Amino acid sequence: MYLTQGLHRAARQSPNGIAVIFGERKTTYAQLLERVQRFAGALVDLGLKPGERVGLISLNSEEYVAYYLAVWWAGGVVNPINTRWSVAEIAYSLDDSQTEILLMDEAFAPLASDIHAKSSCLKTVATLGCPSSQNDVVEMDPLIDSATAIADRCPSGDALAGIFYTGGTTGHPKGVMLSHTNLWTSVIARMATIHSPQDSVALHCAPLFHLAAAGRLIGQLTLGATSVLLPQFRVNEVLDSIERHQVSEATLVPSMLQMLMDDAAFSSEKFTSLRRVTYGASPMPGKLLGRLAQELPFVEIVQSYGQTEASPVISLNATTPGKGIPDARFKSAGRATLSIELRILDAQGQEAPPGTIGEITVKGPGVMLGYWNKPQETAQALQNGWLHTGDLGYLDEDGYLFIVDRLKDMIISGGENIYSAEVENALSLHPAVSQCAIIGVPHDVWGECVHAVIVLKSGYAATDVQLLEHCQTLIAKYKCPKSFEFADTLPLSSTGKVLKVNLRRAFAAQHEGTVVPASEQKST
Amino acid sequence: MYLTQGLHRAARQSPNGIAVIFGERKTTYAQLLERVQRFAGALVDLGLKPGERVGLISLNSEEYVAYYLAVWWAGGVVNPINTRWSVAEIAYSLDDSQTEILLMDEAFAPLASDIHAKSSCLKTVATLGCPSSQNDVVEMDPLIDSATAIADRCPSGDALAGIFYTGGTTGHPKGVMLSHTNLWTSVIARMATIHSPQDSVALHCAPLFHLAAAGRLIGQLTLGATSVLLPQFRVNEVLDSIERHQVSEATLVPSMLQMLMDDAAFSSEKFTSLRRVTYGASPMPGKLLGRLAQELPFVEIVQSYGQTEASPVISLNATTPGKGIPDARFKSAGRATLSIELRILDAQGQEAPPGTIGEITVKGPGVMLGYWNKPQETAQALQNGWLHTGDLGYLDEDGYLFIVDRLKDMIISGGENIYSAEVENALSLHPAVSQCAIIGVPHDVWGECVHAVIVLKSGYAATDVQLLEHCQTLIAKYKCPKSFEFADTLPLSSTGKVLKVNLRRAFAAQHEGTVVPASEQKST
Repeated sequence: MYLTQGLHRAARQSPNGIAVIFGERKTTYAQLLERVQRFAGALVDLGLKPGERVGLISLNSEEYVAYYLAVWWAGGVVNPINTRWSVAEIAYSLDDSQTEILLMDEAFAPLASDIHAKSSCLKTVATLGCPSSQNDVVEMDPLIDSATAIADRCPSGDALAGIFYTGGTTGHPKGVMLSHTNLWTSVIARMATIHSPQDSVALHCAPLFHLAAAGRLIGQLTLGATSVLLPQFRVNEVLDSIERHQVSEATLVPSMLQMLMDDAAFSSEKFTSLRRVTYGASPMPGKLLGRLAQELPFVEIVQSYGQTEASPVISLNATTPGKGIPDARFKSAGRATLSIELRILDAQGQEAPPGTIGEITVKGPGVMLGYWNKPQETAQALQNGWLHTGDLGYLDEDGYLFIVDRLKDMIISGGENIYSAEVENALSLHPAVSQCAIIGVPHDVWGECVHAVIVLKSGYAATDVQLLEHCQTLIAKYKCPKSFEFADTLPLSSTGKVLKVNLRRAFAAQHEGTVVPASEQKST
Repeated sequence: MYLTQGLHRAARQSPNGIAVIFGERKTTYAQLLERVQRFAGALVDLGLKPGERVGLISLNSEEYVAYYLAVWWAGGVVNPINTRWSVAEIAYSLDDSQTEILLMDEAFAPLASDIHAKSSCLKTVATLGCPSSQNDVVEMDPLIDSATAIADRCPSGDALAGIFYTGGTTGHPKGVMLSHTNLWTSVIARMATIHSPQDSVALHCAPLFHLAAAGRLIGQLTLGATSVLLPQFRVNEVLDSIERHQVSEATLVPSMLQMLMDDAAFSSEKFTSLRRVTYGASPMPGKLLGRLAQELPFVEIVQSYGQTEASPVISLNATTPGKGIPDARFKSAGRATLSIELRILDAQGQEAPPGTIGEITVKGPGVMLGYWNKPQETAQALQNGWLHTGDLGYLDEDGYLFIVDRLKDMIISGGENIYSAEVENALSLHPAVSQCAIIGVPHDVWGECVHAVIVLKSGYAATDVQLLEHCQTLIAKYKCPKSFEFADTLPLSSTGKVLKVNLRRAFAAQHEGTVVPASEQKST
């Protein structure tokens, strides 16, 4: 298993096949191969040795694809950097992973000097796809153009392929070490579980530093199929791309899909090429489901559950709303992919029977090598080959997985376990509630108590008392929020998850002098 | 990658799903798991240690499936034995592979004492699924029934999973060593290349000691899907099974398919569940293709090319005749699967451009560890990670592979390379020829010369001269047969390939004192 294999195969089988579409530019597999061979040559010229890291901070582009492949071709390890991070956070990840070469696109080139100054590890900072205006920042493009195309030095098997910093919502980012085997087997098992045809055209509008998007890209490269890249999600660009490039698969969370279908420019006729939409961050609302059944009956929707530590896909649930109203299992995260063994563990670490909530643990060739330089966290996460996801869920009688909550989002109040998702589900059923988040906040008596942050629907109103009364009709009293807070928006991570750590910090700042939330203490 | 993973997954996700149908018996995944755990326990009780071999000589049955899984569960290595071999050949393979435990079903139990006497390695011979009437032959079933179910000891990755003796048509059988990764990645990549749904029902009527059939079985177990087993191909049983068990996929070579459709009991209505037929040994004749288009328009046919050394699938070509007459590429062996890199090498060992005939070489995670105890043959077959298949072929501009001949079937006469398949193709176009085989026979002047063995169609006649004249209208004179021989049948291997080694031996016996064919000298 080596991640340049798809490029070799595609360059032989379909040299004129389109690998990447970005803006007006189309790159064939023959062109991509040529670029990758020189790009790798340039990295070796810069001193890259086998196993050394190369960072990239960039919006999505065709150069992002070349970066992944060229680093592997040169025998290196990718370190794709979260574009939403501060300079301090970027420097932290570079030094933590001992990355000596950092590439950046035009959007991030202005940060080059700042990053260079803050990182103690960097030896080369270079712009990619744009000129450099700073003395200490190299220009990569002329180096690539003049470099010698080198033979493939891609290692295989358990060799480290990438360090992917988790976009977790708690604590410091951790570098997830994934091997060539981890990434290749996860991708191929996903495609064996839910078929992707070799003529598929996939749209990537989520950032390629996330493995959710990068995994989809690796899949397309393994197939020798086409990837359409957008720098980010913009309604008009996505609508235009799907129609113009005859996109057949796209990863779009429900809120994105809603925005697309709400747009004046949307019509079913423009989406006739679309066969599949994959989503992960949040369940598909019932209303949207009905609309999909009516307006895009030919589209299959696939709920995907995973985490970076599992390379990333763990389970998949495919439904075609146009074929009839799905049953209750539609809300499930689906069944384990073909490469995954999945067990639910109870509090005693024993396998729990169907219907019992416990920690989701998985085993398989996609499970990470470990966390970079964090033996203790690695030992906690990996036990006898089983990855402890930190997520809570249960299986039904037929192996369908239902996610209940993140383990770290669990609130312990007065000795009772409270799953925040359960409270959020109750609150979200109130007609005035648009979004909500439940966090644990410190309490002298109970340790923690339940605090709700609410975004009301525009034009609606609701008081604490009304919301509490509503909750009490649905869930046990001890689970109901003890305090409420109203906000205009919720802070979201780049994958669309609510950043509860930010909510906890804001609460702590407003209530200075009070006890720090227990869940916060655990994670830092 | 460990080959018991599918069993773990299926036993959790669909414990009541049917794993195996054999005769009137249906085995669920829960039952199979229970059996495998005890079967493995019994093997350990017999003294099996990690990495040690367990042989089985048996017709297909549900016990064959339990054997594969139980040996892996116990940490052992399978050695599934060719049922067409003589006792001497069986003993050879047992001793070559140092197999100490041999299991046999009712059909082969009578050979037990003979094999025991001839093998110097065997410690335990046991019957499986039937009583033993001999003192030195143990009965396995009571041992399994009384054994303790043990925890899975299946190793993973590069650990040896099986020794599969190649049914090659030349020379001594060689033990192909395949690891868990080899088999798992090959199976999963096949299913990612050409999708197999998790509710598929596959019919296996080819013997499970061949990796062609065993690979399909492993696929079904990985999916948690159903396998219908038949002890062997019999028209009425296959017809009945397809209808009764709603078979969706079957491996049937064209001659088998022809026999099924020619049978009085055949009707399209009985085959409505069938979605795919996979075949490998010979191309699909045009007439049969037309008939498939008309009578089974919903069936996809998949030509599969591979060899045991590649675990085994190398390339696949899928066509649905019912969707319209396929183009010339239909005769191709298709494109490399998603786990395979494929190169054609010219005589100088350089990569040949499209359209040029050369040796087919492949690379990927399915390529064998090597030949058991044969470092020299291993070094010849595996060069820098590339498997040299010994087959000749070329790629077209889009990576479609066309097989020309086996390298060993190539005849060198007067310094010219003659591919026997080319001569056979020409001869088979004569209206009187039913089957034919071309071999090289010794010649004082030219080294070898071309000899044809012909089976005439019943009711037709043709002379040497007529056949030669026919050939001369189609191929260069130096390629035409120098001598002809008429036979009632051709000797076939268990995979339906003509056993040219037998033809050469027969020729040599008839022409004693003449030079031994050069190709024969090479292979022994």
